[in-house]
Amino acid sequence: MDVNLNLDTQVVPITLFVAVLCLCLVIGHLLDENRWVNESITAIIIGCVVGTIILIISNWKSSHFLRFDEQLFFIYLLPPIIFNAGFQVKKKKFFQNFLPIMLFGVTGVFISTSIVAAGCWWVFPKFGLKGLTISEYLSVGTIFSSTDTVCTLQVLHQDETPLLYSLVFGEGVVNDATSVVLFNAVQKINADTLGGKAALRILLDFFYLFSTSTILGVTLEPVSHLVLSCAGWAIDIIYSSRIGLWQVNTRTLHSSVREIALMILIAYLSYMLAELFELSGILTVFFAGVLMSHYAWHNVTESSRITTKHTFAAMSFIAETFIFLYVGMDALDYEQWKMSILSFGASIGMYSSVMLLILVGRAAFVFPLSIISNYMNRVGDGSSKITAKHQVVIWWAGLMRGAVSVALAFKQFTLSGVTLDPIDATMITTTIVVVLFSTIVFGFLTKPLISYLLPPNTSNIDRTRSLKEDMTLPLLSFEESASENLSRAKENISMLIERPVYTIHSYWRRFDDTYMRPIFGGPPRNTDLP
Amino acid sequence: MDVNLNLDTQVVPITLFVAVLCLCLVIGHLLDENRWVNESITAIIIGCVVGTIILIISNWKSSHFLRFDEQLFFIYLLPPIIFNAGFQVKKKKFFQNFLPIMLFGVTGVFISTSIVAAGCWWVFPKFGLKGLTISEYLSVGTIFSSTDTVCTLQVLHQDETPLLYSLVFGEGVVNDATSVVLFNAVQKINADTLGGKAALRILLDFFYLFSTSTILGVTLEPVSHLVLSCAGWAIDIIYSSRIGLWQVNTRTLHSSVREIALMILIAYLSYMLAELFELSGILTVFFAGVLMSHYAWHNVTESSRITTKHTFAAMSFIAETFIFLYVGMDALDYEQWKMSILSFGASIGMYSSVMLLILVGRAAFVFPLSIISNYMNRVGDGSSKITAKHQVVIWWAGLMRGAVSVALAFKQFTLSGVTLDPIDATMITTTIVVVLFSTIVFGFLTKPLISYLLPPNTSNIDRTRSLKEDMTLPLLSFEESASENLSRAKENISMLIERPVYTIHSYWRRFDDTYMRPIFGGPPRNTDLP
Repeated sequence: MDVNLNLDTQVVPITLFVAVLCLCLVIGHLLDENRWVNESITAIIIGCVVGTIILIISNWKSSHFLRFDEQLFFIYLLPPIIFNAGFQVKKKKFFQNFLPIMLFGVTGVFISTSIVAAGCWWVFPKFGLKGLTISEYLSVGTIFSSTDTVCTLQVLHQDETPLLYSLVFGEGVVNDATSVVLFNAVQKINADTLGGKAALRILLDFFYLFSTSTILGVTLEPVSHLVLSCAGWAIDIIYSSRIGLWQVNTRTLHSSVREIALMILIAYLSYMLAELFELSGILTVFFAGVLMSHYAWHNVTESSRITTKHTFAAMSFIAETFIFLYVGMDALDYEQWKMSILSFGASIGMYSSVMLLILVGRAAFVFPLSIISNYMNRVGDGSSKITAKHQVVIWWAGLMRGAVSVALAFKQFTLSGVTLDPIDATMITTTIVVVLFSTIVFGFLTKPLISYLLPPNTSNIDRTRSLKEDMTLPLLSFEESASENLSRAKENISMLIERPVYTIHSYWRRFDDTYMRPIFGGPPRNTDLP
Repeated sequence: MDVNLNLDTQVVPITLFVAVLCLCLVIGHLLDENRWVNESITAIIIGCVVGTIILIISNWKSSHFLRFDEQLFFIYLLPPIIFNAGFQVKKKKFFQNFLPIMLFGVTGVFISTSIVAAGCWWVFPKFGLKGLTISEYLSVGTIFSSTDTVCTLQVLHQDETPLLYSLVFGEGVVNDATSVVLFNAVQKINADTLGGKAALRILLDFFYLFSTSTILGVTLEPVSHLVLSCAGWAIDIIYSSRIGLWQVNTRTLHSSVREIALMILIAYLSYMLAELFELSGILTVFFAGVLMSHYAWHNVTESSRITTKHTFAAMSFIAETFIFLYVGMDALDYEQWKMSILSFGASIGMYSSVMLLILVGRAAFVFPLSIISNYMNRVGDGSSKITAKHQVVIWWAGLMRGAVSVALAFKQFTLSGVTLDPIDATMITTTIVVVLFSTIVFGFLTKPLISYLLPPNTSNIDRTRSLKEDMTLPLLSFEESASENLSRAKENISMLIERPVYTIHSYWRRFDDTYMRPIFGGPPRNTDLP
């Protein structure tokens, strides 16, 4: 019978990690104003610093206080990130630009994977790294094809370049899902040489996973939503709001809390169910996010709406910071570096060639696919034409490698975060270096590049005025919330009456109007308004 | 190198548990209307049903798919429950009724623990259960002294009986914290007989833990708040709200998300820090909750306010449902029942005597302490006098045993959820039976008892009208939110200008006004208003 609380084994690392996470958030905010250094870079740098401190304290033995377990990543960290991406995506923009997004996000990953895998297969043995199988080369290809567009999105302005923003964001989320699905499909082949049969097998596996996961996500959502609305939350809340002030708060709070808890649990359930059926949880949870924000969103209370939107974003934010922090600490993992079989020169050569392959692999699909997209869209009004400058920005936006790359690399080359094989250790260090270099160097250059290509045309806003208004914040924020609500309502209506410009979007809308909205609800689409 | 996702060991139980949790929420809502069966009862019953199904499927071998680990409880489930209690507590009421709440919540636990421990020490050997040490008897005393007032709070109306509601709620949260702290203090004594020295030791340990944990919680909060407000969130948000509509949403969302993430992390950090210093995380996180809602609440954006309030409540709600679900399943644990050394008759006798001791132990402090509280409060206007009927309700409200009892019992009598000793198995089954019986039977009787003692005097609200208004919900809810904000602002002001009736509350206010508010902010206290 243990007498003490006996949590010591977990308390110290968890406390430290939470404290460092807090530090990241505060420093990230303080550095936010200049927009050069974003949260990812901050987290990586703080991770490096903390790793160094631990390395010194532990007498050059370890730079960690928590071991990365890819189960932790795939069960707890990835679902909120991907679900949030689906939940926050602007549905209208997403479906309007469905074709170019899918071209970049799906076809692009295939092209990039092929080029990176072939390049690695050709170049790795030259640096003395031998013994990887075809399947592993393909895995490396997918690992280095998953992008991290957070950096670029922080610099792009949604109101100045809506098309570009939508393309970069859309590609980012589809790319995440595609690379994980492709990675899983690649894992299944065992052949030593890649013939037409194996390639076909990968393709078939991919499309099987892609379609079934999408179908699961799309069907789960309306079912859960039906449960939610049939249970009659709305009536309950309106009813209770007639009793009195206190009663409103208590009852509304309780109902909202149940709604929110149910939304979080259902989202998580969709991910776990897909994993249970050996489908792609990533895709399922992404589409669950898209549909949940579309239907459930309009049927829950205002408080639940605000809460879920912010909670999902906060969970995703914490998960992302967590991963970058870990990458920073892992970069200092002394054991891993010692285990690497390559000389210093060969290592540098390998990192450079991987970076070069990433640059080439991305260029190889962004520019041709943009031309195809422009050709397919030639009948439009020209507003959705991807200009040469935009193409360069899209190409650049996808050069950063982030959380998904790290997770896939750990999954492929470690066993519960521990590497014993020298080749595996080399691959892990290569991934870490590529993620570090691309996030910090490319991330740093994003702002100047975009300023050069797309000079901003907004006027500077007087900050002194807003500083004065800060005094009245408590009252202002109440009113702001009301006006925000009204403007959102207006925006919803104006968004809905605007004519769709893209075929897929209009098909979706027609289907949505005819079958989905009458059954599952959603805002009324008033086409009589001017 | 593993090829498959290899999550199977965790995927199946997690998926099942999340699915059952969803089921609980939906059924809990459907049964919510009648107010007889609350969520705790629903979760326990569903747990029993699921446990039976698993028992049958697994061929009478196990009723679980997840093992209860008390680390899981103390690291992940308890902090959100207690923090939320502190966060949602009505500060004004809490500090107004500070003395009676502390009398019931702290002194009461001591009295109840002594009576239950002494009674068990006297009665257990008679049923053939021998071999428990003095320390274990005292632990049993604290285990059966922690109350669960959720049942009663669902039936009480905050606007009809504000004093009663405040007392029951306040005692509930203080009781949770006190019993955990006392449990930890009791764990430290090793004597076979309880002399005056050992009792003094427990008392000193208790007050050391109590005071240091409170101080940690109280000091951590303003520090973290200072960081939060110095980082200048407010300015950032006002500033960005001048740029344009889209910019507002993007920027505000991002800032709010950082705020929310930081608040969640700081709350959790305070708990873990206390555990790290071997203090009581429960008390620290409770006071962190009280202060965070007091200061940070008034300095963050409206969205963050709504989000944190609902998120903390949702997390607490999920954690509680999780625990009751587990209790339901554990009740069917065949192995545990087989291991018990007592005959059927002796078991029934033991359960009955524990229930009787709980009834007596609670009566022994509620009625005398109410008289003391009334005596101390005789100078007041009589509004805070605890009537005989109120005393009965308070007595009844604390008879249910819940999550904390189960967690403490598992901590005392199992090793990571597994029992090998027959005496320990008997104690676990006794706890489970007491929790089940008190929650279901006493919980069921709460509503008739309160209806009998405190007949409701509100008029019935016509539901047909509100059903009609349901059609205009989307617009209504926007306006409701605005009016809710306004009324909350008004309420805040009226709450602040109302004259405090209790000395401690006024001392706190004076301190708050003089030192805390000028430094850490908070709503302006305009005493010129009528």
